[in-house]
This record gives sequence, C-alpha cells and structure tokens, in this order.
Amino acid sequence: MATNLSRRTFFGAAAGTTALGLGMFRTVSAAEAKDIKWDETKKFVIIGTGFAGLAAALEAYENGLKADEIAILEKMPTPGGNSIINGGAVAAAGTDMQEKEGIKDSPDLLYADILKAGGGLAHPTLARRIADESVQNFYWLRDKVGVQFKAVTFHGGHSVKRSHAVTNNSGSGFINPMLAKCKEYGMEPRLRTIVDEIIIDDQRRVLGVRGRTNYRFGREDSGRPFTMRATNGVLLASGGFSNNVQMRMSHDPRLNEKFDSTNHPGATGEMIQAAQEIGANTIQMDWIQMGPWTSPDEKGFGLAPLFVESCLGYGPMIDPVTAKRFIQESGNRKVRADAIVAMGHPAVIYTTLENAKTAIIGQNMTQELYDRARKNNVIKEYPTLDAMAADLKIPLDELKKTNDTFNKYIKDQKDPDFNCMMFKNAKPNVEGPFLAVRLWPRVHHCMGGLEINDNAEVLSCRGKPIEGLYAAGEVTGGVHGMVRLGTVAVADCMIFGRVAARQVAAKK
Amino acid sequence: MATNLSRRTFFGAAAGTTALGLGMFRTVSAAEAKDIKWDETKKFVIIGTGFAGLAAALEAYENGLKADEIAILEKMPTPGGNSIINGGAVAAAGTDMQEKEGIKDSPDLLYADILKAGGGLAHPTLARRIADESVQNFYWLRDKVGVQFKAVTFHGGHSVKRSHAVTNNSGSGFINPMLAKCKEYGMEPRLRTIVDEIIIDDQRRVLGVRGRTNYRFGREDSGRPFTMRATNGVLLASGGFSNNVQMRMSHDPRLNEKFDSTNHPGATGEMIQAAQEIGANTIQMDWIQMGPWTSPDEKGFGLAPLFVESCLGYGPMIDPVTAKRFIQESGNRKVRADAIVAMGHPAVIYTTLENAKTAIIGQNMTQELYDRARKNNVIKEYPTLDAMAADLKIPLDELKKTNDTFNKYIKDQKDPDFNCMMFKNAKPNVEGPFLAVRLWPRVHHCMGGLEINDNAEVLSCRGKPIEGLYAAGEVTGGVHGMVRLGTVAVADCMIFGRVAARQVAAKK
Repeated sequence: MATNLSRRTFFGAAAGTTALGLGMFRTVSAAEAKDIKWDETKKFVIIGTGFAGLAAALEAYENGLKADEIAILEKMPTPGGNSIINGGAVAAAGTDMQEKEGIKDSPDLLYADILKAGGGLAHPTLARRIADESVQNFYWLRDKVGVQFKAVTFHGGHSVKRSHAVTNNSGSGFINPMLAKCKEYGMEPRLRTIVDEIIIDDQRRVLGVRGRTNYRFGREDSGRPFTMRATNGVLLASGGFSNNVQMRMSHDPRLNEKFDSTNHPGATGEMIQAAQEIGANTIQMDWIQMGPWTSPDEKGFGLAPLFVESCLGYGPMIDPVTAKRFIQESGNRKVRADAIVAMGHPAVIYTTLENAKTAIIGQNMTQELYDRARKNNVIKEYPTLDAMAADLKIPLDELKKTNDTFNKYIKDQKDPDFNCMMFKNAKPNVEGPFLAVRLWPRVHHCMGGLEINDNAEVLSCRGKPIEGLYAAGEVTGGVHGMVRLGTVAVADCMIFGRVAARQVAAKK
Repeated sequence: MATNLSRRTFFGAAAGTTALGLGMFRTVSAAEAKDIKWDETKKFVIIGTGFAGLAAALEAYENGLKADEIAILEKMPTPGGNSIINGGAVAAAGTDMQEKEGIKDSPDLLYADILKAGGGLAHPTLARRIADESVQNFYWLRDKVGVQFKAVTFHGGHSVKRSHAVTNNSGSGFINPMLAKCKEYGMEPRLRTIVDEIIIDDQRRVLGVRGRTNYRFGREDSGRPFTMRATNGVLLASGGFSNNVQMRMSHDPRLNEKFDSTNHPGATGEMIQAAQEIGANTIQMDWIQMGPWTSPDEKGFGLAPLFVESCLGYGPMIDPVTAKRFIQESGNRKVRADAIVAMGHPAVIYTTLENAKTAIIGQNMTQELYDRARKNNVIKEYPTLDAMAADLKIPLDELKKTNDTFNKYIKDQKDPDFNCMMFKNAKPNVEGPFLAVRLWPRVHHCMGGLEINDNAEVLSCRGKPIEGLYAAGEVTGGVHGMVRLGTVAVADCMIFGRVAARQVAAKK
C-alpha cells in the first residue's frame, strides 16, 4: 500500500550536476534544512542588475534591510543587463512634469491603455498596480535616486505624452544613478555570479540559491560553486530570453538561430527555466515581440529604427523581389514584422532625401546619427530609382509603377491599397537622391514569462504563490499581454521590483 | 563549500499530502527506486481514455505488449473523455474515400494547411508527422479497429474535403469500436482512477505514478491511494483544461467563470500541472480556442455545429442587426469567433431545406439529430425569408439584398466580397423553407499544452525529453499553433498516441 511511500521520504539530489548548469532540482525536508552548509546567509537575494534588481535593492534598504543583508547577483561582467541599453524613458501617468506641459493624464487612463494594447491578455491586477504606482515611482526616481529627466515624450499606443525621458536618451540615465545610490548605501552588485538553481524545501518554500562565482558568460563550465541562503526572499530580476534560441523556438518555432535580437547577450532566460524546475508557471511565452525596424546591415538595435519609424508614410515599403508593397507601413509592430518574416527575405523602405530632411533628419534622428548610418551604409543613397533598383536587385519597371502609385496616394493623402497613414508635408518621391534601408526583424522583447500576482510573488502551476520567490520585469509575463506599450516595461520593472522588496523587508 | 551539498542527497517527499491532490512532487534516487513499494507494475501506463489513450493502448498491444502489461486509467466514471462527444470526423489526406469522390489531396497539402492556420506557431515537425501518417491512421481505424465511415466532409480552413465522418456523427463512432477492440484484446479502462503525481528519479526519469482509485470527480478528498510503476513509459492522454477556470485565466484573463465551454466536465488539466511540477515545459497555453459554431439556444457543444459547419458555402452568415455578412464563412475558427464576439451579439447563418438535404442532413448530421435540433428549436425553420426576418428581428429589405447577392455568388461559384468557398452542388437560396441557426462562441479547445517532440516525448523546460514520459492530444501544445483546423485534432490524438505506444512497446 501507498502509505509506506507517503510516510517516508526520498533522496532528491544528483551529485555535482547542477554546478555545470544541468538544471537538476532538489528538495530539502524542513528537518534537514538546518543541516545545509550555506556559504552565506542573506535576507534578500536579488538576481539581476537591471531596472528591477537595482530598484529592489534600493527599496529594500530604504525599508529597513541593512546593506549586508542584501545580495545583488549579476552573471555578466558589467551591471545593467538589458536595461542599460534601453531607450531611456519611463511611463508615469499624472506627474508634475506632465502638468507643466498641460497634459491631462491619470492612472485610469494608463490602465486603460495597457489593457487595450494587451488585446485581452494583459492581467488587469498587474496593469492596475503599474498604473497606480507610476507617479510615485517617477518621483522616487527623480527626488530620491537622482535620475535627471528632460522631457515628456509620446510613444505609440499611449493616449497622451507620458514617457518621461532622461537627459541622455538611454537606460544608463537610470542605471547609473541607481548604481551610485546603491554604492552610497553600501551595496554593490557581485559580477560574474550566476545562479543555476533555486533550492526549496519539501513544501516548495524557497530556502536559497546555488550558483557559481567567477563565471565567464559563454563558458558554461566556468566558475566556482557557492550556496546562498535567503531567509526572507529571492527576487528573479533576470530579464527575458530573447537570446535563447531553444526557448524561443519552443514557443515560436519561426524564431530560429537566423534571427538576431536587439538585446544584450545575457538575455538567455535560464532563471525562467530554474523557476519552472521548481514548479513555477509560465504564461504567454509565445508573445515574443519582434522589432520590424531593424536592418540586416548592422547589429543589435542599431540606427535603422530611427530612420524607419519616421519614414513611414513618406515612402513605400516593398518586397524587393516583386517591387510591390505588401503591408500597411504605419501598422503595428507585430503586423509588420510578421509580414516581413512571412515574405522570407528582407524588405526595403525608401524615400527621397527631401522627405528625409522634412521628417527624419534633425527630427527623430540627429544629423550625427544619420551621418553615421550613411557612412555604415545602413541608410543607402542612390541618385535615381534606376540606381537603387540595380543595386538592390529590384525589378525596375515594377518599382516605377509602385513608386508612381504611392506618389499619387501622397498627393491624394489617401492610400486605398493598405491605408497607410499619410502626412501633409510629404512630397511625392520623384527627384533623387533616394535613401533606402533594408529591413529584417529582430527579436526585441519577451512579453511572456513567469506568472506573478500583484505582490510580485511567483505563482506555481497550481496558481499558488511559491513562498519566498518573487519576480519582476521581463522575466515575468502577463503585464503587457499581446502588445507592450513603449516605456511601460521600465515602470513595470521598477514598480514590481520595489513591491517585492517591501514585502521581503517587512518579513520577520 | 558547496561540495558538501552537491555530494549528498536530500529528502524530497511530504507525508501524505499528494493523496489529496496538493501536488507535491518527489524525486527518488536510482539506488532507492528498487525499495519503493509499488502496488502494481506495468510496462505502459496510459492516463486518459479519449482518442489518444485508447489508440495508444491498441497500438501497444498490436506492437507486442500484453494486455496485462498495459494499464488504462480514467478518472471519470465513464470512458471516452472529451473525445466521445467530439463531432465524429477525422482528417486524412489522400484516402480511397476521397479518391472516389474525385478529391485530390496529399500529405503536403494537409501539412501546408496546418501551418497556414497555425499562423507561424505550429511546430513543423509535429504537423509533418500528422500529415504523413493521416492516411495510414484512417485505414487503421477503418480496417483494423472497425470504425464505420460514411462521408468525406469539408471543414473551414482546409483546402479540400478531407474530414472523414463516422456514421453516427459523433466521437462515440470512434470511441465505441476502440473500446470494443480493447476488450477483445483483454484490456479495459480502470474508471474513477485519478493520477495525482508523476514519480521521477534524481535524473528526472519517470518511474511511475501515484494516484487514487475509487475517486469521485468533484470530491477532491475521495479515493484510496495507490502507486503504479511504469517500466517502459507513462502516456499523458488526459486532454485539455477548458473547464479549469484558474488555468484558463492565468493564460487568458478574459476567460472567467462566466464563459461556458463545449467540453466534458473532466477537462480540468491537472496532468499538465503534474507534468509541470516535474519540470515539463508548457507552450502556447494562451491559445484557447473559442468554437464559433455553438448556439446560445442549447448547452455544451450541442447540435448546432453539425449544421453550421456544413452550411458554410451554402448560405450566408449575417449580423441580424444589419442583415449584412461580416466575415468569410469558410474562414478559420478564430477569425469567425473573434468576429462574432467583437460584434457583441449572436450571428445568424441560414440556408434552404433543399441545400440542407444536399449538404447537411444525412451527411454531417443524421436525420435523427437534425430532427432533434429542429424540435429543440436550435435549428429554426421558416417558410419564407419574411418569416425569418420577422422572428429573428432582421431588417427584411437588407436581408433580401444580402440573399440575392449571395445567390449570385453561388451561381458564379465565386464570392468577391469575403471569398467564401462555394460548392458546385449548392443551389441559390430562393424557395423556402429556410433553416437558420443563431451563433455565439464557447471555450472549445486548448491549443497549448505540454511541449512534445515528434516522437511524442514530453520535453523539459530545458528542451530535453523527460525519459519515460509521453503525451498526445489536447494535453500537448504546438501541433496546431494559433488555429486548429477541424478534425485535425482527432488525427493528432490518435497518431501521437500511437507513436508513443510504438516506442514504449519497442523498449526492452
């Protein structure tokens, strides 16, 4: 009879394998937990040094934890994760900066915008938390952390201007002051420190982590094993999996190794896997956002997006094989990226230098960045359509037809074929020079991830919080649903990182 | 140092909790496995008695396992799961039945249709397996199992008629012969036998299961604990989670308790959770399909779908408020369901009794079921369009216009408005009586589930097969991607159930 089995206990650990990242989990009975030899004991173990991890560290300290009770672990040789290469603006709805510009905004409006973009999949309780705390988070960043803001900007999908941009237009404008404040508080990230495993007891309560110091990213056999007890909680603030091809392809089989990403190399998602191994639930993992505005002629996020997003409506996007348009140029990211991927080869978007001077250069793209993109031949220049057709192997007669038709639509201010948005200051693309950019999407953001509740507690596959485990930022799912609004993810990271920190700090 | 931890083993089981379905997992070291007191030992443990489970049992027997080496476990008091209330047709591409009707079909065409409907998310290797084995599976069902087929029917999204319908238009037309064949082979499902937990060793190899006999569905404290060893493999053939509101809402927060489902009550997904607890990966769980063909005038799956799916192309689907068509009737389920939900009130589809006699009654729908649907007023009959308009509050003039236009398209065999597929034997809808059905979607099928490879092996969250664990049918994800084509899931269940069985039977 099974009573025998249910009353006894079993061994659960494989010798040595996890030090190599093989992902074996183990449980520890409550009675045995006191016998584990922990290398260190902390109250709060934070994994990741992006917006979420650093915000959590600061918040935990400001809520009463001592610096030496907090560990901030970072597997890469430098801190900041993907956040430090972010665009550098945070959503907040109802700030004094907005008020000065006469922008009327409110938590309810931000909440409604997130749900609308989410297409039904955004979790209302998570969106609500972000909406309700966005203003306080902004003031905390500015008045406590010392982040310097310069302007309130607009991002597609928001009802009003509410993206608060930092002075240097980069995520480092947040990360560097946060790191400085950590240092001021006596905390510093431990770099090259990877976590392989979350250690739980037989009630699935999190006891601590197991990992490696002196880890070299890309050398999976590197590092020295360590264990770290976390008496109050572990926060996963470790980002998404844009650079993990196996994970990507499980959820969206199109996203094979031929796709680059805009992310930093460390966006490899192994903490999601480690959490899954102890029974955490993942949600909406197949909503992997591709940026439709990247060019195969450069790496990473690159300069092309600055050109492309402002070129929409000024020139056509075509399939170079047929010279025909194939999608609404001003449509949403997902629709455009999917259409290019389905085509199977890069698209081309172009306009005249004349239009570029009106709408792009000195507008969304500084002259300096434009010059660099021209020099790198990401933006290509041709004296005539004939020259462009010859270089990019576009059938000339068809190109001329497509161009004439698009020019007519610019004049008519109406596009009956694809309903592309048309701008009054656009001129027909007649006289060269012409500027062209090739487009091939890149993996940009993982909307899905670990399921959390609005206390940032990670939920098990049975829908219950896993005691002692928290998550914030791109490692989580459900905040954005189908479509992420620009700059909301920055607020998401910080707000849920801080929510987790307050709970961990409040624990006895 | 961590060596201490990595070299030793830990206790992993909580006493007694799993008997109550609390979902605690345990690992067992290889050394200890031989000490477990198993109540029974089988080579092959099959969980579920729908298409996948029964097909696997038969295939395992036919490939050399003995009847008493196979256990078929079913938590409900009756066998058949959700399959037994299925529509009763299986996709196969290139059969003699199709050939007799002059239908040209091929595995490649089915493969292309699955991938197209999948919107990029269908796993090509899984679709390929179904496409390649569909014909053999059909012949097996007919010539070996003794399933009786009567017609090849059309379902939306397929390029040709390839849904092979059984004589009684119900999944029981498959399940009953399969159960009879199991009995002939000396196998019978063990009813009221629920599995709570999958037992693994420290290498995550599946050793067996732990569950309860004498379980009463809905009474979660019922039953007597048992353990069953599975020397060669465990197959999860336990279906989807359409009736688990907590799971549904984790992945799609819209689908709260107010939504009905077409599924049997036992579609509650706990084997997905049990597999997640041992580190199995789930994919595409947020693709929860709404059936666009259910009627608010009856409960559950009902009879309406039998009429509606064969009515496509014979009569128009309209918004009763405007009397206008609004979507391609022969388009895929998701597009149709989303369009009706977006409309905010039930749609209406209709045709003449004359067309119904050609394409529906005695074809996809028996006279008996037709009579019942008429009696229940799910199918409504009207002598004239005027009478239909009056009863369903459709503006008559607009209805006549829409009807005339659709009649022209039937004659032209071409629908320039929505590109609905047109059939040669369709007659213009001119003379009454007219038959109409109201349509409002219900939760119907979970496209997502456990990740498997094309050997039906369940993959861990690290992308590796979990040794000894197989899954087939709705419990899995990735086969269909975004949109499941009608009757492909039936083939999916059987083909992957049989794939798993062949491997399990071939093991030493």
